Amino acid sequence: MRNFIKKLKVEYLLGMILLALFVVPTSLNAQDNSKNTDATWIWYPGDYEIWLSNQMQAKRTERGAFFPPLWRYYSPYSLVTFRKKLSLDQNDVVEIHTEGQAKIQLDGKMYYGDPKALEIPAGDHILTIKVYNQEATPSLFVKGNNVITDASWEVTYEDKEWIDASGRTSGESGTHWDQVGSWDFDNKEDLPSEFRLETKPKKAVKITPHKKGYLVDFGEETFGFVKLHGLEGSGDLNVYYGESEEEARSEEFCETLDRLEFDGSQASDFLIDQSRAFRYVNVQPEDGIQLDSVSMLYEYLPLEYKGAFNSSDELLNEIWDVSAYTMHLTSREFFIDGIKRDRWIWSGDAYQSYLMNYYLFNDNPSVKRTTYALRGKDPVNSHINTIMDYSFYWFMGIYDYYLFSGDEDFIKQIYPRMKSLMEFCLERRNANGMVEGLPGDWVFIDWADGLSKEGEVSFEQLLFARSLETMAICAEINGEPDAVKRYNGLAEDLKQKIQTEFWSDEQQAFIHNRVEGELTDKVTRYTNMFAIFFDYVNAEKEAQIKEHVLLNDQVQQITTPYMRFYELEALCALGEQEYVLDEIRDYWGGMLELGATSFWEKYDPTEKGVEQLAMYGRPFGKSLCHAWGASPIYLFGRYYLGVQPTAPGYASYEIRPNLGGLKWMEGKVPTPKGPISVYADRREIKINGIKGAGKLIFKSRNTPSGAAGIQSLGDDAYELAIETDREYKIKYKAL
Amino acid sequence: MRNFIKKLKVEYLLGMILLALFVVPTSLNAQDNSKNTDATWIWYPGDYEIWLSNQMQAKRTERGAFFPPLWRYYSPYSLVTFRKKLSLDQNDVVEIHTEGQAKIQLDGKMYYGDPKALEIPAGDHILTIKVYNQEATPSLFVKGNNVITDASWEVTYEDKEWIDASGRTSGESGTHWDQVGSWDFDNKEDLPSEFRLETKPKKAVKITPHKKGYLVDFGEETFGFVKLHGLEGSGDLNVYYGESEEEARSEEFCETLDRLEFDGSQASDFLIDQSRAFRYVNVQPEDGIQLDSVSMLYEYLPLEYKGAFNSSDELLNEIWDVSAYTMHLTSREFFIDGIKRDRWIWSGDAYQSYLMNYYLFNDNPSVKRTTYALRGKDPVNSHINTIMDYSFYWFMGIYDYYLFSGDEDFIKQIYPRMKSLMEFCLERRNANGMVEGLPGDWVFIDWADGLSKEGEVSFEQLLFARSLETMAICAEINGEPDAVKRYNGLAEDLKQKIQTEFWSDEQQAFIHNRVEGELTDKVTRYTNMFAIFFDYVNAEKEAQIKEHVLLNDQVQQITTPYMRFYELEALCALGEQEYVLDEIRDYWGGMLELGATSFWEKYDPTEKGVEQLAMYGRPFGKSLCHAWGASPIYLFGRYYLGVQPTAPGYASYEIRPNLGGLKWMEGKVPTPKGPISVYADRREIKINGIKGAGKLIFKSRNTPSGAAGIQSLGDDAYELAIETDREYKIKYKAL
Repeated sequence: MRNFIKKLKVEYLLGMILLALFVVPTSLNAQDNSKNTDATWIWYPGDYEIWLSNQMQAKRTERGAFFPPLWRYYSPYSLVTFRKKLSLDQNDVVEIHTEGQAKIQLDGKMYYGDPKALEIPAGDHILTIKVYNQEATPSLFVKGNNVITDASWEVTYEDKEWIDASGRTSGESGTHWDQVGSWDFDNKEDLPSEFRLETKPKKAVKITPHKKGYLVDFGEETFGFVKLHGLEGSGDLNVYYGESEEEARSEEFCETLDRLEFDGSQASDFLIDQSRAFRYVNVQPEDGIQLDSVSMLYEYLPLEYKGAFNSSDELLNEIWDVSAYTMHLTSREFFIDGIKRDRWIWSGDAYQSYLMNYYLFNDNPSVKRTTYALRGKDPVNSHINTIMDYSFYWFMGIYDYYLFSGDEDFIKQIYPRMKSLMEFCLERRNANGMVEGLPGDWVFIDWADGLSKEGEVSFEQLLFARSLETMAICAEINGEPDAVKRYNGLAEDLKQKIQTEFWSDEQQAFIHNRVEGELTDKVTRYTNMFAIFFDYVNAEKEAQIKEHVLLNDQVQQITTPYMRFYELEALCALGEQEYVLDEIRDYWGGMLELGATSFWEKYDPTEKGVEQLAMYGRPFGKSLCHAWGASPIYLFGRYYLGVQPTAPGYASYEIRPNLGGLKWMEGKVPTPKGPISVYADRREIKINGIKGAGKLIFKSRNTPSGAAGIQSLGDDAYELAIETDREYKIKYKAL
Repeated sequence: MRNFIKKLKVEYLLGMILLALFVVPTSLNAQDNSKNTDATWIWYPGDYEIWLSNQMQAKRTERGAFFPPLWRYYSPYSLVTFRKKLSLDQNDVVEIHTEGQAKIQLDGKMYYGDPKALEIPAGDHILTIKVYNQEATPSLFVKGNNVITDASWEVTYEDKEWIDASGRTSGESGTHWDQVGSWDFDNKEDLPSEFRLETKPKKAVKITPHKKGYLVDFGEETFGFVKLHGLEGSGDLNVYYGESEEEARSEEFCETLDRLEFDGSQASDFLIDQSRAFRYVNVQPEDGIQLDSVSMLYEYLPLEYKGAFNSSDELLNEIWDVSAYTMHLTSREFFIDGIKRDRWIWSGDAYQSYLMNYYLFNDNPSVKRTTYALRGKDPVNSHINTIMDYSFYWFMGIYDYYLFSGDEDFIKQIYPRMKSLMEFCLERRNANGMVEGLPGDWVFIDWADGLSKEGEVSFEQLLFARSLETMAICAEINGEPDAVKRYNGLAEDLKQKIQTEFWSDEQQAFIHNRVEGELTDKVTRYTNMFAIFFDYVNAEKEAQIKEHVLLNDQVQQITTPYMRFYELEALCALGEQEYVLDEIRDYWGGMLELGATSFWEKYDPTEKGVEQLAMYGRPFGKSLCHAWGASPIYLFGRYYLGVQPTAPGYASYEIRPNLGGLKWMEGKVPTPKGPISVYADRREIKINGIKGAGKLIFKSRNTPSGAAGIQSLGDDAYELAIETDREYKIKYKAL
């Protein structure tokens, strides 16, 4: 969304989107469903995601105590009706499988027979199947020669149409039908309620006798189920987990532990039933119990690393690898924040995971699952995760999803929930039309000492304006011109106010907040860096922000990889790739130097020794594997390999390689139409594009050669149109 | 609500209620909770009821096929937080039991220890327990010396306060807390999720060999689990149930059946796991299977018959007994419609069950459970049971509950859900301010041939007006004077319109409906009879309705006990007790003559033989045990024994015995303060009252004697104030 939006005005963007709708083949618009030429399990959209996320997020424990999320849980509808209008050339015999009890009706007539052999004669029919399940998500799998469950089915929870402005609805008997949701449960035996992540055995790299038991090192941050081998006797056994050796050794303060009690009847090889995050495990049997050894089952979501990055700088390569591993560890049932603590879905964290995902796995279902899980259902009565900024990131994540996937079906499916959340936000504005923290709202922004959350925070208004623009775009896709106008009007007003009420000519920057009508004199990086990728400032202000904020050490430094993500992105957007690489070497390289095998929740280079492990007032409170630590994946793909979509689903795209001072680099960026490969050194650029309206844009000291049709853009810049998926080799001379 | 409201104007009624709040002792206001001097299981209000009703209503089957309700299901909140502010004189050690996983915090600090031994030091504390349960209702039981779970605990599902009109909330951290719900799970072992109705063995009265098996007669309508005795061999066995012998014999058309398959390893005495309604069972083993005998486990809610009626007319006594049995069979986890078919909670049916309950069991928890189950949660997107009239009966049922119970706590707890349902109704009004069926609405009224549901039906407006009046009363209890004004204003407008737009001077009756602005000329009994107990007509119109509608055979006859209830009530309200007794002897006596052992869904005396068993186009579609068939319980208690509250919770009440031509009658009416006994013959009235402002009102040819303070009211009427619970004996001479 960043440079893309920076260069395109919203009006033009809308044109591009509409154009894209004609250009992108249908199979790409609904790419996740395109594989469902065979039957798949279906459910009410979002319901399985809500159910699964409830289960997953309730797995957090703190020193053995249950620790569920702080926010509201929703549940699936326990009784839903699926329907499909059929037009059959010949008889079909279908088998019907459900998760829950089912009532089957063909053309309104109750079917009393065997659901494995429902005969449907040729002709037009309506097949209706009502499913009840109070414990898990009511789900349906139908398979015949022609009749199969797929994304074309409809579903209702027996909600009725609300009357419209004219006082009437046109809905057939008033029932409101939605398109079903699905994932990839493509066999009748693959019951959605029985979904488990995959596992594989993993051995320890070092097992050291320690006290009565062992200290076990798995060599790197990992996640899974600890297995105790040769377990004999009866009594208690405690397992203390540590992301660091210090934590595992600290029986008193380690964040996670398991207290097990054996009566002697246990299996000799015993698998602990809860998965945990750790590198080290301190296994302490009490008297009466003994064991030989310890291993684990690594638990993971099987995802293909479709993106890649390699370069002349081994440190950067390692940073990319550790970022990718960090990202994989936190990409699970959903995109979670960190694997040791929380294991929850936080919208601000997920928003960054989405962007990293587009450059690593490009797995759309993970984005959709996470988006549904975060949003829950109606009515809305608090912000997402209770955090005001996190509601806004949720909107922004949807637009990015559309840009990277071109999946218009999802935008249509999620749009009603976008509207109700936006109404919630709009109702909470103050008399000045701005949002500020009300009771029940958490204004987060970032973990930073002394950061004010009071009054009208300019950063929140900025995200709010961006969310309103997203609403306008999605309203357009949903064919609601009045809503487009309304949301654009609201966005325009708010953007105007941000400029007039927060910009300080004196400080040449946006001011952080205004409390009870009084502007403070505090400048922070947040509003200023976002204003750059949001294209909310002209070139003059951009330069002022760069000098007076981004490159100004007097402005409070950012210490979370979370906000480092945006800070470095803003600098890349301003062409500071070389500077940013140095920052990455320092910051992420700094963590590696301290032995990181995954990237952290927070890193302050000034902290010493075990200080680095503490957070929230607890000695091992800090997460050492946090999704937002993995941003180099995104930065390398987006600003060095330089690949980005410029219309939804990569209907058009750009490649702007930028070596940032490297001798060479190579890599791949996944797209819905396959990977785009980029190699660049100072003399040659090699591209393997995809079908579509691609553009290679680069600078050269000399006239480049190697392909027909290279256009000069002036100022040493050149452009080459890429239309097919063959290789292009360009000879040039890097500036 | 009937005569009571007839005599008191709403303004006066409000005064009475307010007075009553001072008069009624606290223990009566919250009478259901008064027994909880010990710990009880608690949950989010309404959630357990919703969960249990989902389970119960999904037990309907039709010829073996699952047949869940037609309407929307809600679910419990799966994650809730309970809290109690404590002020302890001395240390307490509490044990904590939960249904679901629990996070315990004392004064915000996480507790990692054994939940059976949480030590709380003396002083002020806040104990917070978060419970997660996706499958059943998250519930909590805490027991210490002083700290116990009871109705005083609060609970939240992490909803936040909505901003009020002034733009702010004052809620502590914005969280919205509700008072908890409970029933009577008063031991830690009584898990709410494991609730089962009680059972007791019952033998058949006749077992006749039939085909390969047996036809079994249990002698009367019953409900429960069939038990097969001496079962041997392997193969199939079919059980066909019948409320009539014809139905049980009809393997092709009986409404309920069980198809069982045995592999030879079954117990010799085999209990079928689903409970069904029947009098007859046709048990048909296939080859390879044999059995000796059949019995059953009768399944029931243990309720005390606190009401009683006996008289000089044995037929009426039998009608009362069969009505009470019918009522008991349909009073289960909730008040359901009928036991064979549906087994669902229908608001119109439940409304009558409530009234019968006040004269038989007087079991408040059953009313509250049913009220919560019917309403579900927010958002509202269809009428209750999808039926417009049934939303209105729901409101009316709440007011009756308050009148009979005086339970102000419940009115406060349910009020937010009353408001949201009322907003739903108000939003659906047409330009004329009236309700008419929109897509998704079912306008029911009654089962009657050719009954029009089109356009503005006067009956629906009448119920709507009554619901608005109920809202005003409950708004007053909730301290919302603006809302009182608004609802009263809306009610007044609508009542005015009903008079001016539906009353026909020509027909001397209310017209049934107006379609597209044109009044039809159709008169039905519905609006006219309700207008009488609603006190919406003056004495002149009352007389006109009596003559031109109620006693006019030209106006379409009512054939359901459902609407017979109101028709006979209207006639009783007009003093036609003697006429009504004859009607009861004919109508309910007619069913008894046909062998009824419980009262039916519908009875048309003109139908012959098996015609009586058919309904909905199915030969055995009719329910032969339907709650709305039991109305004589209510009529006898209310209009013959003549007992009714005149202020909430029987803070004041009336006894107006009316023999209706009987030689003598005697009976009991239960109240929150104990039973009121009434005996009357033509010479003597004996009353055993309750404490409170009771009045005995009766007519006598001579000057009555036997008690001090009998006041003459003129016109042969006398009144005696009853203040204590001793017996009063009055000598008089019946008119």
